[in-house]
Amino acid sequence: MNIQLALDRMTIQEAVDMARIVQDEVDWIEVGTSLIKEFGMDSVKELKRAFPDKTIVADMKTFDNAKYEFELCFNAGADVATVMGAAPLVTVETCMETAARFGAQVMIDLLHTSTEQQNTLHQFNDAVHCIHVSKDEQEQAGHQLKNVSRQAGGVRADEGLKLAMAGGITLESLPGLMLLKPHVVIIGSAITKAADPRQAAFQIRQVMNEQRERRIYG
Amino acid sequence: MNIQLALDRMTIQEAVDMARIVQDEVDWIEVGTSLIKEFGMDSVKELKRAFPDKTIVADMKTFDNAKYEFELCFNAGADVATVMGAAPLVTVETCMETAARFGAQVMIDLLHTSTEQQNTLHQFNDAVHCIHVSKDEQEQAGHQLKNVSRQAGGVRADEGLKLAMAGGITLESLPGLMLLKPHVVIIGSAITKAADPRQAAFQIRQVMNEQRERRIYG
Repeated sequence: MNIQLALDRMTIQEAVDMARIVQDEVDWIEVGTSLIKEFGMDSVKELKRAFPDKTIVADMKTFDNAKYEFELCFNAGADVATVMGAAPLVTVETCMETAARFGAQVMIDLLHTSTEQQNTLHQFNDAVHCIHVSKDEQEQAGHQLKNVSRQAGGVRADEGLKLAMAGGITLESLPGLMLLKPHVVIIGSAITKAADPRQAAFQIRQVMNEQRERRIYG
Repeated sequence: MNIQLALDRMTIQEAVDMARIVQDEVDWIEVGTSLIKEFGMDSVKELKRAFPDKTIVADMKTFDNAKYEFELCFNAGADVATVMGAAPLVTVETCMETAARFGAQVMIDLLHTSTEQQNTLHQFNDAVHCIHVSKDEQEQAGHQLKNVSRQAGGVRADEGLKLAMAGGITLESLPGLMLLKPHVVIIGSAITKAADPRQAAFQIRQVMNEQRERRIYG
């Protein structure tokens, strides 16, 4: 299981500084959509340059122009890029093809997809499927990702899908989420806004390890 | 009716140069998603600086983080910004609120939305509703926007919605599309890839004017 540090709403330098503080406790480093739209591919290049040995995730949120956008971010150094599950299927297919050419990975963001759409997306079993409660749903509507059951809509770890989870995950909500056996747990403000980000990341890692030892997941 | 020049898959300088060639024949200038993701908000700033009197559209394709993303592009000089109609409703609402604060406009991209979603989005009657066949649907699946009837899914000009249309529109397909009385017709490669972009834009304007004179639309 991997911890993905989500970096959003900051400058590239702030992102590099934050990642440096917590780098020993996180596995994947996400260049957030806001950094990409504010600073372009320089954001991906700089994070990869600073952390060449980390898995860099470009949260492109691609909805169209898949080949062009994915080539952009893989050429900039990304190891993983995101596409919206709500996009036309041909776009997801093109993302998969482009990533395969680069030896890179695709994360399908399931934000605001129907169970039917999620089931259709199961065919992309090389991708990571990300169950996602968005920032706007959290901040404007008060939602958070917590207490998901073993079956979240059309997404089931039992089918061998690699899952990711994102959406205001905290130290408190984490144990309940582990039942889905996530491949990646995406954490943003619970680390970046903590008084002591490194300590916060360390505690999240500890909770994960404890859960693993309890064999709640395999 | 407005012609929106879509600028994609090029550098900022190439975009400025292209817009300068055709500026007398177009009304709105779109900073394409690919420019935004490649170069960040510099793309919007440079286009607005070069064309302060044109309506600058930032094709943000926002799916989350609406307030932050829309503030970014309006502060960079955009007059219009796009949000995906497939996004959670709270995101579209936040885009509307943010745009209102800036005295700016929202374009809702209806790409891959259901009729039900389109009907729900009718409540945002200050927005421009964009019927859109995506680049990937065109290039990978061979689709184009043409011969739309008066009623395109849940979108009806009769209800007083301001409509936009995008998706491989050409001089040939344009007359059939005018039946929907679009507020904005979005043209990319039919101008930018033409041997003579200025002449291509001029011809598109002519077809629109002819249609207007025939009173096919009001």
